[in-house]
Amino acid sequence: MTYCVGLALKDGLVLLSDTRTNAGVDNISIFSKMHVFKIPGERYLALLTAGNLAVGQAVVNMLHEGIKTNERVETLYTVSSPFRAAQLAGEAVRRLFHTEGDALKAQGVPFDVSILLAGEIKGRGMRMFQIYSAGNFIEATPDTPFLQIGEHKYGKPILDRVVQYDTDLMDGVKLVLVSMDSTLRSNLTVGMPIDLLVYRRGALAPDVKRRITEDDRYFQTVRERWGEALRDAYRAIPYPDWSTGS
Amino acid sequence: MTYCVGLALKDGLVLLSDTRTNAGVDNISIFSKMHVFKIPGERYLALLTAGNLAVGQAVVNMLHEGIKTNERVETLYTVSSPFRAAQLAGEAVRRLFHTEGDALKAQGVPFDVSILLAGEIKGRGMRMFQIYSAGNFIEATPDTPFLQIGEHKYGKPILDRVVQYDTDLMDGVKLVLVSMDSTLRSNLTVGMPIDLLVYRRGALAPDVKRRITEDDRYFQTVRERWGEALRDAYRAIPYPDWSTGS
Repeated sequence: MTYCVGLALKDGLVLLSDTRTNAGVDNISIFSKMHVFKIPGERYLALLTAGNLAVGQAVVNMLHEGIKTNERVETLYTVSSPFRAAQLAGEAVRRLFHTEGDALKAQGVPFDVSILLAGEIKGRGMRMFQIYSAGNFIEATPDTPFLQIGEHKYGKPILDRVVQYDTDLMDGVKLVLVSMDSTLRSNLTVGMPIDLLVYRRGALAPDVKRRITEDDRYFQTVRERWGEALRDAYRAIPYPDWSTGS
Repeated sequence: MTYCVGLALKDGLVLLSDTRTNAGVDNISIFSKMHVFKIPGERYLALLTAGNLAVGQAVVNMLHEGIKTNERVETLYTVSSPFRAAQLAGEAVRRLFHTEGDALKAQGVPFDVSILLAGEIKGRGMRMFQIYSAGNFIEATPDTPFLQIGEHKYGKPILDRVVQYDTDLMDGVKLVLVSMDSTLRSNLTVGMPIDLLVYRRGALAPDVKRRITEDDRYFQTVRERWGEALRDAYRAIPYPDWSTGS
């Protein structure tokens, strides 16, 4: 399993992914699930993957090497807009299903991949999409400015309550770290280190791109403060004044 | 879907269940999922069900009407211990699978039921069990004093962080209400009203048995205070001091 979360805010993007992959519980490895496609000053696109690792890696490779469409070969370095980038990623997923779907099914392995694709191309705006196993996709909007893939449930309540379109980027960083921490604690198949990307709208380069390890002092602070705050918060709720009895 | 949670604490039990059942998103009803079997001064057992409603209700009926085992007919009113109660509930599940499993499968409906069974029988102690679709079961222990069935993920992080065996019963009430609130907010198939039961070890009668509706003033307080506390908590976390750039 995996947990990746993306915020598409007024000021920019905040993306966070874990790095654990597992085939069973006794075969655990570290793979980055965050892949960047950039041309300095022209485009900055990040792709986060969850689901079957082989399928996710194949999508990334196809988007690097090129997909032939209508006599052209397109990559994430050549697509004209973020929307076209999402279409191309969806096309890569569908072609992989065509070539690998039956063989996976024969082995009882579901064809399971989901992708967050977020970034900006100069003059074409900043956008964030979630691409499904069928190659179709949705886009984050000001009403719902966050998208999650993989093991999303443990870390969703805090996002549901707090994230808004005008949330500050650094507040967004705190929120995705809290969301990840809840997931790390409750699901063994999501694991450290984690990869963080903060992108400011219009910059065409990252504000922060950082691998956060177990030793990271700031992440330790977030975990401790958040744990304390939750314990304090429930203590501060008054007791009920119900009379006893059935 | 459903969410039920039970705490088996040093001082007693705290049980909470929602009441929503749905067959698709346009067929939603209210059914209590909390069923009590009691003989005043002798036993107090509560059974919470999640999964297929027909299977859950059938289990409850069988435990009321009796299951023939070894020339005897046993019910939850006659079993000699909480452990035997869990065995009988498991037996009911297995018999239902035997009679209904194939017909459900033919309709593409999974045989899906899970049960929390908790309570006390005089002289035989207080215990809490979780019974699976195969009729097998596990018991809560001081190391892991809470069990959840149904849509458990959204409400798990707060329990993981805070609940301990010596948590006070009324603190337990606050925690299960917070856990339920997170679930209600994130999953439409879990819905109000909710049923709360607080049982003090040795009492053989409930301390609190209460249906909590949308209008319940205390639950409103819990929701508001918790929401505010979460927002305050993330604001109180300091910002990172990372230098920018990749």
